[in-house]
Amino acid sequence: MARIVKKFGGTSVGDVERIKNVAQLIKADVDKGHEIVVVVSARSGVTNELIGRAKAINPNPEDREMDMLLVAGEQETIALTAMALHAEGIDAVSLTGAMAGIKTDLYHTRARIVSMNCDEIEKHLDEGRVVIVAGFQGVNDNGQVTTLGRGGSDLSAVALAKGIDADLCQIFTDVDGVYTADPRIVPKASKISEISYEEMLELASLGTKVMQARSVEFANNYNVTFEVRSSFNNNPGTIVKQEVSSMEDVVVQGVALDRYQAKITISNIPDKPGSAAKIFSGLSKANVVVDMIVQNIGRNGVANLTFTVPRDDSARSRDCVRNVLQELGGGEVEVFDNIAKLSVVGVGMRSHSGVASELFAALGEAQSNIQLISTSEIKISVVIDEEGADEATRIVHTAFGLDKEED
Amino acid sequence: MARIVKKFGGTSVGDVERIKNVAQLIKADVDKGHEIVVVVSARSGVTNELIGRAKAINPNPEDREMDMLLVAGEQETIALTAMALHAEGIDAVSLTGAMAGIKTDLYHTRARIVSMNCDEIEKHLDEGRVVIVAGFQGVNDNGQVTTLGRGGSDLSAVALAKGIDADLCQIFTDVDGVYTADPRIVPKASKISEISYEEMLELASLGTKVMQARSVEFANNYNVTFEVRSSFNNNPGTIVKQEVSSMEDVVVQGVALDRYQAKITISNIPDKPGSAAKIFSGLSKANVVVDMIVQNIGRNGVANLTFTVPRDDSARSRDCVRNVLQELGGGEVEVFDNIAKLSVVGVGMRSHSGVASELFAALGEAQSNIQLISTSEIKISVVIDEEGADEATRIVHTAFGLDKEED
Repeated sequence: MARIVKKFGGTSVGDVERIKNVAQLIKADVDKGHEIVVVVSARSGVTNELIGRAKAINPNPEDREMDMLLVAGEQETIALTAMALHAEGIDAVSLTGAMAGIKTDLYHTRARIVSMNCDEIEKHLDEGRVVIVAGFQGVNDNGQVTTLGRGGSDLSAVALAKGIDADLCQIFTDVDGVYTADPRIVPKASKISEISYEEMLELASLGTKVMQARSVEFANNYNVTFEVRSSFNNNPGTIVKQEVSSMEDVVVQGVALDRYQAKITISNIPDKPGSAAKIFSGLSKANVVVDMIVQNIGRNGVANLTFTVPRDDSARSRDCVRNVLQELGGGEVEVFDNIAKLSVVGVGMRSHSGVASELFAALGEAQSNIQLISTSEIKISVVIDEEGADEATRIVHTAFGLDKEED
Repeated sequence: MARIVKKFGGTSVGDVERIKNVAQLIKADVDKGHEIVVVVSARSGVTNELIGRAKAINPNPEDREMDMLLVAGEQETIALTAMALHAEGIDAVSLTGAMAGIKTDLYHTRARIVSMNCDEIEKHLDEGRVVIVAGFQGVNDNGQVTTLGRGGSDLSAVALAKGIDADLCQIFTDVDGVYTADPRIVPKASKISEISYEEMLELASLGTKVMQARSVEFANNYNVTFEVRSSFNNNPGTIVKQEVSSMEDVVVQGVALDRYQAKITISNIPDKPGSAAKIFSGLSKANVVVDMIVQNIGRNGVANLTFTVPRDDSARSRDCVRNVLQELGGGEVEVFDNIAKLSVVGVGMRSHSGVASELFAALGEAQSNIQLISTSEIKISVVIDEEGADEATRIVHTAFGLDKEED
């Protein structure tokens, strides 16, 4: 007998038929004698509908009322999921985030979980019930309902798995797991069976949006092993867990390509102390998240600065930089939208040398010109032309031995 | 400054525009310096949608989960109403039934309010906020959410008015108030400005479905004066209050016509002890609510029995009676669907004689044959042919001096 937390997202509980399907998936584990806690999101689309109605009434709704509104979405699905299990003859009970003991801080719409009191869940598990918990929501010390922000239901699942000391936490989604690359770009991409939290974080932050980074970080902090798998088939998914030494044998776990970046180059910046600081604090005030940064000081005492930003923010970033340059009294800014960021990720890089040169060789073979390079302990990212980026990704994927075996 | 409870039903908060309209109605009172507690229902249609989804998943959903599901409906409207008030610059806060301190017994889907703890509401009122409370819902001693059954939001409003000792409780609906007769039948019907609880109860139970009887009974028990009025215009409505002596001057407050009844006649019942009891306990087990009953014992020792039931239940009632008669060994049953029940209601009947004879005279003038008569202290009901019933209602309305003055 095992304790299992199973989380189903909005697509998995999108309508009556899918909720019945979820009940079947749960039943299979109940029949094996496992103890099950289920976390569900609102039906897909419901949260956006509610937000739409709110904005039509008040363009700037108060956060507290937004939370009061949004929690209604999960409250519907927990009750319907419990009813679906009852229809299968399975004893089950639905709990709101508050009833399930998910305690958060006071920040509405983006609350953090501060503690878990799982007594109520334990009581129901002891009495042989499947417990259905509303994801995405909690309660603060003032008794107010709160929501956990984007990806909050994953966070609820990971926190509950920690709270009840579950043997397994399964995140059901509409993809099979984490792949060595985006299969739409690299047909030979294969599913990764085991991956460390850090690798998952790097891949998630690179556009492989299987899960929000904060849920992975939470799992890392509390050492909660979880599995990402599909609710539409029975294939094993990807296990995300603490790094083990065998993982180092795999030098590169995956190749990620991010097309949603733009490169901004500032040339001839007057070389005064604090110039760069002024530029980046200006961007920060404008809520632009800057990714890669490279600076060169030329022989003539003027600096060149290049960095990347989300492509949607490129025009705003340019305007912002222009204002700062006017203040500094010099410099020109240029925006390049036709770039892509290619990254290779793997904990094995820590102990293996030569990854960078192997990557550069592969990119050379792909005739991709490297515009920027940035590295971390377990990741190397390069900015290349958007044109040919797909082909470059395939070549790099092959170069690191990631192509799946022919069946 | 007054304390006012304002309740808006599902039609009044049916969409974004109507919720904004409700905010305007509340603002008018806030601007006058009043303290306001608002009770809202789910948007019209939402509760039925949720029930539809539940039944598609499980034909016999558990009551506890049904409550968990349905409370989501009001949770949406309280938040949206608060946002609409914020958009008007009015400080407001939404509270679920549980947060508002509406404590109920343990019966899910049809809970009764057992106590009110209005501390949280009082705190917000003290701090100058409009308080928006989810109608129809409460919480039991086990911390489980409960719902109050049909018409539950009216009940929430009346109970809150009692709990905070409100000066006024306004039930906003899609009609202007309580009329002396259904204006679709009697064009000269006029709005009643004041009516006693008992009269309201009799009229409500007679098909003038402005409010469910239980809310009026609750108001009667706790002496809560309330007003029924329209959310679509600014006309004064009908005040429902404890009987005052001046009400006795009005002998008849209203004339009600109920077409949704059927008459069932059983003849030649063997005159054994307990025959009638067997018939009515059979109907009761079949969940048929019997209204008027008349029994005659003939000279030959066989009894005739006539009663009325809701027309939808007439076939079921006939089958049920047939089974009992078979057991008793005799008797025939006949169903008459083409009947109507006409009633005159007024507390003045207690002190005025001759109401019955005046009613019979009017019905004679209308050439309506009286098939059954039943009387209470403040009501006389007769069953007549459905054909001509509208005309009879108009003649009776005129006979008791209820026709409105020409403008």
